[in-house]
Amino acid sequence: MRILVTNDDGIMAEGLRVLVKHLQDLAEVLVVAPDVERSATGHAITVRTPLWIKEIKINGEFFGYAVNGTPADCVKIGVKAISTKEIDMVISGINRGPNLGTDIMYSGTVSAALEGALLGKPSIAVSTVDFDKPVYESAARFTKVLISKLVLQDFPRYDALNVNVPSVPYSEIKGIRVTRQGLRKYKDFFEARKDPFGNTYYWMLGKVVDEEKTGDMDSAAVEAGYVSVTPLHIFLTDERSIEKFRYLEES
Amino acid sequence: MRILVTNDDGIMAEGLRVLVKHLQDLAEVLVVAPDVERSATGHAITVRTPLWIKEIKINGEFFGYAVNGTPADCVKIGVKAISTKEIDMVISGINRGPNLGTDIMYSGTVSAALEGALLGKPSIAVSTVDFDKPVYESAARFTKVLISKLVLQDFPRYDALNVNVPSVPYSEIKGIRVTRQGLRKYKDFFEARKDPFGNTYYWMLGKVVDEEKTGDMDSAAVEAGYVSVTPLHIFLTDERSIEKFRYLEES
Repeated sequence: MRILVTNDDGIMAEGLRVLVKHLQDLAEVLVVAPDVERSATGHAITVRTPLWIKEIKINGEFFGYAVNGTPADCVKIGVKAISTKEIDMVISGINRGPNLGTDIMYSGTVSAALEGALLGKPSIAVSTVDFDKPVYESAARFTKVLISKLVLQDFPRYDALNVNVPSVPYSEIKGIRVTRQGLRKYKDFFEARKDPFGNTYYWMLGKVVDEEKTGDMDSAAVEAGYVSVTPLHIFLTDERSIEKFRYLEES
Repeated sequence: MRILVTNDDGIMAEGLRVLVKHLQDLAEVLVVAPDVERSATGHAITVRTPLWIKEIKINGEFFGYAVNGTPADCVKIGVKAISTKEIDMVISGINRGPNLGTDIMYSGTVSAALEGALLGKPSIAVSTVDFDKPVYESAARFTKVLISKLVLQDFPRYDALNVNVPSVPYSEIKGIRVTRQGLRKYKDFFEARKDPFGNTYYWMLGKVVDEEKTGDMDSAAVEAGYVSVTPLHIFLTDERSIEKFRYLEES
């Protein structure tokens, strides 16, 4: 098995290195990751400027390729240009901090997995939910277990799994819950300041004020000590709304 | 009614100006748009650097606010910080070129409408499908008609409409089709070149090789001369896959 690994925290991030170390036990790993941190890049791709690829060594040993692009760019160029062999899976992570609920819209980590899904590869985004005290080791070990559990030939085409792992020692993880993406509501506000030239500028700040934690939502599973596994797909159609808008067809 | 208008082609784009001119017939319009072109930015937001807002005049008259951010940033800061009154709708466009099928993942135009949806506003992304010969006038006139047809109090919460208008004279538009997001497949490839210093760099090129144009897909409607209206939502869960992955819960 050959796994392409990427992330959005950049190729030097600890979460990526811990993940790679664990995955090497079960697969050939190709690292193609952004040269610098690309958080909150959403599903951006680079279309007007070229991409550079740089070989990165760690302690004198080849580690992977750094790309001056987004996580989605890394997946595309990794699968289509860098890899000389067929890629079997795409794994993105381990992200420092959660990717839960509607926040995943902005997530570079998740966008890389969705790009993998678009390319027809079983893909997984993995995050450890505590930004301040990330326990990468648990998330990486868990990812290895998850991959060995997955029946890859049944992996639905154009799906990606969004995986959030509690930031606790591995033995304390209670199990897996297959969940739905919840709704996270922020009270966004903008703090206005004056620059030295008298112009106003704004810092965006957000505070989670409301969150669906009921039933089978992703946040609820993590809060209860389980790993949340949400099957995502690359389609945004709201099926329940198709008939509701049918009246627009009348002239 | 008060409409926030944005786009991803930048505040000076013709498509935006034509749209604003038409919308002013039926609503108070607030323009908050990126200072420069921000195509293929996906659903990125700016979190580590501040945003500047600049008042833009056209022919000596106030036109709107330019922001050094992404389309999603513009919607957030427009609704939360610039507007002193409640915004009733968010409209993004008119994009130069189609936003159809899985391509909308990368679309700044669509991401702005999804950001509006996340903020609880009825939101619409509008594109004219011919990049080389965009007929903005038809798309703008059509948007006005669409808004007057919409029953806003029934607009499903967290939905946005993705609207693609054939690039033809208004009288040639055959009507509206409520559609599903189709699948667009690209043969992506990367052209390698050498820079003057001997380093290899890559241009990403893509060619549509396969496209779902059957049944109620967005591309099929446009191809047949109809305006495609696809209800999108901000959730990515693949509902059909929840049960398929349930086996992962077994230990």
